[in-house]
Amino acid sequence: MATADEQLTEIRRGAADILVESELKTRLDSGRPLVVKAGFDPTAPDLHLGHTVLINKMRRFQDFGHQVVFLIGDFTGLIGDPTGRNATRPPLTPEEVAANATTYERQIFRILDPERTKIEFNSRWMGAMDAVGLIRLAARHTVARMLERDDFRQRYADGRPIAIHEFLYPLVQGYDSVMLRADVELGGTDQRFNLLVGRQLQQDYGQLPQVVITMPLLEGLDGVNKMSKSLGNYIGITEPADDMFGKLMSVSDDLMWRYFELLSFRSHGEIAGLRQQVADGRNPRDVKFELAKELVARFHDASAAEVAQDHFIKRFRDHEIPTDLELLVIAAPEAGSGIASVLRDARLVSSNSEANRMIEQGAVRINGERVTNRDLVIAVNADLVLQVGKRRYKRIRLVPKD
Amino acid sequence: MATADEQLTEIRRGAADILVESELKTRLDSGRPLVVKAGFDPTAPDLHLGHTVLINKMRRFQDFGHQVVFLIGDFTGLIGDPTGRNATRPPLTPEEVAANATTYERQIFRILDPERTKIEFNSRWMGAMDAVGLIRLAARHTVARMLERDDFRQRYADGRPIAIHEFLYPLVQGYDSVMLRADVELGGTDQRFNLLVGRQLQQDYGQLPQVVITMPLLEGLDGVNKMSKSLGNYIGITEPADDMFGKLMSVSDDLMWRYFELLSFRSHGEIAGLRQQVADGRNPRDVKFELAKELVARFHDASAAEVAQDHFIKRFRDHEIPTDLELLVIAAPEAGSGIASVLRDARLVSSNSEANRMIEQGAVRINGERVTNRDLVIAVNADLVLQVGKRRYKRIRLVPKD
Repeated sequence: MATADEQLTEIRRGAADILVESELKTRLDSGRPLVVKAGFDPTAPDLHLGHTVLINKMRRFQDFGHQVVFLIGDFTGLIGDPTGRNATRPPLTPEEVAANATTYERQIFRILDPERTKIEFNSRWMGAMDAVGLIRLAARHTVARMLERDDFRQRYADGRPIAIHEFLYPLVQGYDSVMLRADVELGGTDQRFNLLVGRQLQQDYGQLPQVVITMPLLEGLDGVNKMSKSLGNYIGITEPADDMFGKLMSVSDDLMWRYFELLSFRSHGEIAGLRQQVADGRNPRDVKFELAKELVARFHDASAAEVAQDHFIKRFRDHEIPTDLELLVIAAPEAGSGIASVLRDARLVSSNSEANRMIEQGAVRINGERVTNRDLVIAVNADLVLQVGKRRYKRIRLVPKD
Repeated sequence: MATADEQLTEIRRGAADILVESELKTRLDSGRPLVVKAGFDPTAPDLHLGHTVLINKMRRFQDFGHQVVFLIGDFTGLIGDPTGRNATRPPLTPEEVAANATTYERQIFRILDPERTKIEFNSRWMGAMDAVGLIRLAARHTVARMLERDDFRQRYADGRPIAIHEFLYPLVQGYDSVMLRADVELGGTDQRFNLLVGRQLQQDYGQLPQVVITMPLLEGLDGVNKMSKSLGNYIGITEPADDMFGKLMSVSDDLMWRYFELLSFRSHGEIAGLRQQVADGRNPRDVKFELAKELVARFHDASAAEVAQDHFIKRFRDHEIPTDLELLVIAAPEAGSGIASVLRDARLVSSNSEANRMIEQGAVRINGERVTNRDLVIAVNADLVLQVGKRRYKRIRLVPKD
């Protein structure tokens, strides 16, 4: 069993904030298994590596013997958009919630230990709450404190409307902590305010206030924006091994270290050792192989990771594709774009007619495969290396225009 | 049947605001009986003349054939103070609500026609509402609009806390109008914002928005502050006929006309006639008799009013007490004050020893009766004329220090 200090070292790793660390230390010292809560949206069950930063931290707590609660915030999802103005947010049916939960389970148990994971739905208690209960809950927070939340403050200052029920949702989220008697709540840095509401509500209800741990948002493959599906700079955790491996190999060396910190299960000490090796002259590409193999093995298995590495090496060796290409993201219609216009957008050719001439000459390759069809349509979201002639390469991904 | 214009003339009388008068005209023109709502607090069933300003207007609507709803807002009373910080506002029990309603009935049916009065409780629909329903309701209004309410704006600006549930109560009140399909809502000028919320919610729910009529707050016997129990400047509608008569006779001539406008059922034309008589030299005291008799007859009966007038005349004639004494309000302990200190507070004597000497000499009278007991305790809330010697009079009322 790890000591409280050993646990703290790993819990601290990569965390943006721990409020309050001394309280966490006291609870870890007590030796009892802590209840560690993290809330998830019921509408977006397709996880990518960005989501796993939090789930990895949950896994760490499990490794130390604690109980994690994977809380699906389905109550608000079952309401939908109560203003009725947002047609894109219809209420979820209980069947949809259940289906999404199953999808979550299939994904999270690639990381979490099912034995120490409780999947909960806040509709269990919120669905049973009456208007009186919600009024009592609303009485426990003030308008002024709610308006301190960054986005509310900004919207209020800008004269953009905030519907009153939006003030109730952070309270619902905080009440979840009361019902779960959470010792710790994990969330993204953007959740800091809501997590602190939970802390305050627990005190109001006579409970020890939960320790709030916020994790940073993971940068996407471009190393700049946060990883997100809509930006196309993500790695989904159910992607095929070759795709996952190839994408991880495409990140910059700086980003590689960030991913080690937030995504790898190697200890702090091991990662420091790898850094030293690179400083002593080891090729960063080889260290990146280690990262890519670890993550592919997590979401597939160790042999799939070996095979993916072999494929990667072979593909690049056979076609002499450089391994350090940066990703270029190109906006495209949902249905994809014709090869000629993609070549032009990637500035590999200067016109459609040049693109067509190059294709006719057999000078255009995608992932090392020669293109022969001028009418080829490139699908959105595929991760591709385009090649024109011997030396012109671009690593691209088409993403849908909004 | 009165025409819409005839009705409007009486409805307009004394009203602070009608929003929107043209809409009211259209509905009156339709000839159908309108639903006229007014909300009352379930905790304060002791009505005074200040409350009757609104109830008189309800009566006017009944006279014109409309249906009034006397809505007891018991839902929030059943919750009490949900912050738990205000020990003086414990939740009401359903039995207390029922008892208060009975007390209301006994009082309001001295003014309202029971045949055209529906007594309603908003707990009927609000008690059945779940948290989802309240969230949907809260979604229909914005934080910014709620903060436009004068008292909220001021408290927010001053940094004084507004608990979030306080934003929900105006919505509950507005939802009552939706449930009642109110055509008109009556309220005090301090209720204007809340009444307009009801207007907006009805539109959101696809109903014709209610017409909002606000009535001014009635000045108390002092002619300055609004009539209120805590200020001691009120006339309770269940007070004995003599007390009621005497207090009405104590108001200033200016205030008398205000009371005619807001409390008398005489027509506009009749009141104009009385004003003319006074302008032509009639003693205002005789016109005040008319007002006092009308109101005492309303809350007791015509013969009680005659008797009260006889008593009043006899009391003042027998003791040569001037009839135009202004009321002096004196703060006192709940248990009352000794006669000597009251005489001193009223500046009828300059010291306790002078007070005692005057009592010994038989020079002190209360309401014309000689005081012989130096230890007499004057009760709070009694309306008294103190007399020292032949010419020194003060009309006083003791009110409890908070």
